[in-house]
Amino acid sequence: MIRKSKCVNKALDKAIPLCEPALKIREAMRYTLLSGGKRVRPMLCLAACELVGGQDSTAMPAACAIEMIHASSLIQDDLPCMDDDSLRRGKPTNHKVFGENIAILTVDALIALAIKHTVEGTSLDVPPARVLRAILEMAKAVGTEGLVAGQEADLAGEAVVGAIMGGGSDEEIERLRSYARCVGLMFQVVDDVLDVTKSSEELGKTAGKDLIAGKLTYPKVMGVEKSKEYAEKLNKEAREHLKTFDSDKVAPLLFFADYIAKRQN
Amino acid sequence: MIRKSKCVNKALDKAIPLCEPALKIREAMRYTLLSGGKRVRPMLCLAACELVGGQDSTAMPAACAIEMIHASSLIQDDLPCMDDDSLRRGKPTNHKVFGENIAILTVDALIALAIKHTVEGTSLDVPPARVLRAILEMAKAVGTEGLVAGQEADLAGEAVVGAIMGGGSDEEIERLRSYARCVGLMFQVVDDVLDVTKSSEELGKTAGKDLIAGKLTYPKVMGVEKSKEYAEKLNKEAREHLKTFDSDKVAPLLFFADYIAKRQN
Repeated sequence: MIRKSKCVNKALDKAIPLCEPALKIREAMRYTLLSGGKRVRPMLCLAACELVGGQDSTAMPAACAIEMIHASSLIQDDLPCMDDDSLRRGKPTNHKVFGENIAILTVDALIALAIKHTVEGTSLDVPPARVLRAILEMAKAVGTEGLVAGQEADLAGEAVVGAIMGGGSDEEIERLRSYARCVGLMFQVVDDVLDVTKSSEELGKTAGKDLIAGKLTYPKVMGVEKSKEYAEKLNKEAREHLKTFDSDKVAPLLFFADYIAKRQN
Repeated sequence: MIRKSKCVNKALDKAIPLCEPALKIREAMRYTLLSGGKRVRPMLCLAACELVGGQDSTAMPAACAIEMIHASSLIQDDLPCMDDDSLRRGKPTNHKVFGENIAILTVDALIALAIKHTVEGTSLDVPPARVLRAILEMAKAVGTEGLVAGQEADLAGEAVVGAIMGGGSDEEIERLRSYARCVGLMFQVVDDVLDVTKSSEELGKTAGKDLIAGKLTYPKVMGVEKSKEYAEKLNKEAREHLKTFDSDKVAPLLFFADYIAKRQN
């Protein structure tokens, strides 16, 4: 796992070289993209590619693209007119370092680079129709069906992209989509439960926000205990969708589902 | 021409239906995308597609995508941390109506929709490799090589996308790329000249801005007269690149080059 995350970091570093012209934008892109993070998303993508019998290298450009899109969403979320955060992973946020205008341009630049990198970086052995399908998934993940709508519903959608790049069958791709939906929904349920059961200190963010905002949450509708049961049921269901795959290769995806189920903040 | 621009408007309207869920984002997307404008960009795209022997309908989704990307750049340019404009085409700017946070999300949503619409909207008869190539051009137009870098260098890059979708040969595509470069460069030269020869009233924006900013401009380097000659030379060169094409179909592209050459504000 650590070896793979290093490969991802190397590939990301290579994807935005600090070449001429030494644009401030490029610096700003690298600042957030290469500032650490567990690279969970690219790893899910690579794991799903292997799961359906593909090579790591086939999905690597798409995996990097996914991390670029993720980085762009972090920069955007931190903006003054959004969450107005000044720290991210212990470092000043992008707009604090580069200014709000550069930060906003960096968001677009990262989304554009994600698409460009997938088209240009993917091996010519991969059928264009497959690349096109993966790009469609990414565009949906950014657009009104995804990030823009504030949806985490397809949190593990990276697995779908990986399966497409790896040449998975329609059935395999759909099974991974079902897995992703379960994980995404589970994330939301767990998030709602944590909001009412943990203190602000434990969460590292303001607790009870949903209550104050009058948001319709799972605990509110079905109570805390039933919500916890529902999350557990979703975790089981997510695992169920992976059942027919090679048990050796399925470990990272199972691990991810468990990680989402058991998180405490 | 008017008939075509109506077709484009109809296609754009259809591309963002106000369906459920009635997202504010969707409203904001429609607000700027459907607020008029001459649809010069989509028309260039369609014209180039026809020029290389393609059908209008083949390039229509890509033409709409280009207008979506253009609309997103307008919203972004008007933001408080950018040009801080409150009016656009005589109407309040997007962030004035929907708020800064929605406006910023709308920018991403329009870029994402542009990609999605091109993939999903283009006829299945078009080879995926061709669609992929068109998407690459769009991503470059948005990214550090394009809008983000503040470049107008490929102002007529829409023609390249149209030629790709229309199934133009590599040579035809490259000729249109050369045409687009000439037009883009000409735009810059003319812009620099107008900045020092026109009043703020004539321009509809602050004149002499480049001088005050100490920007390196064409008039500064080669004088106003030589700059004008250079612009004229670029216009001739742009026309030269279109010479071998069917003279009936080349009219819209010639017209566009002239329009850029002769603009007075």
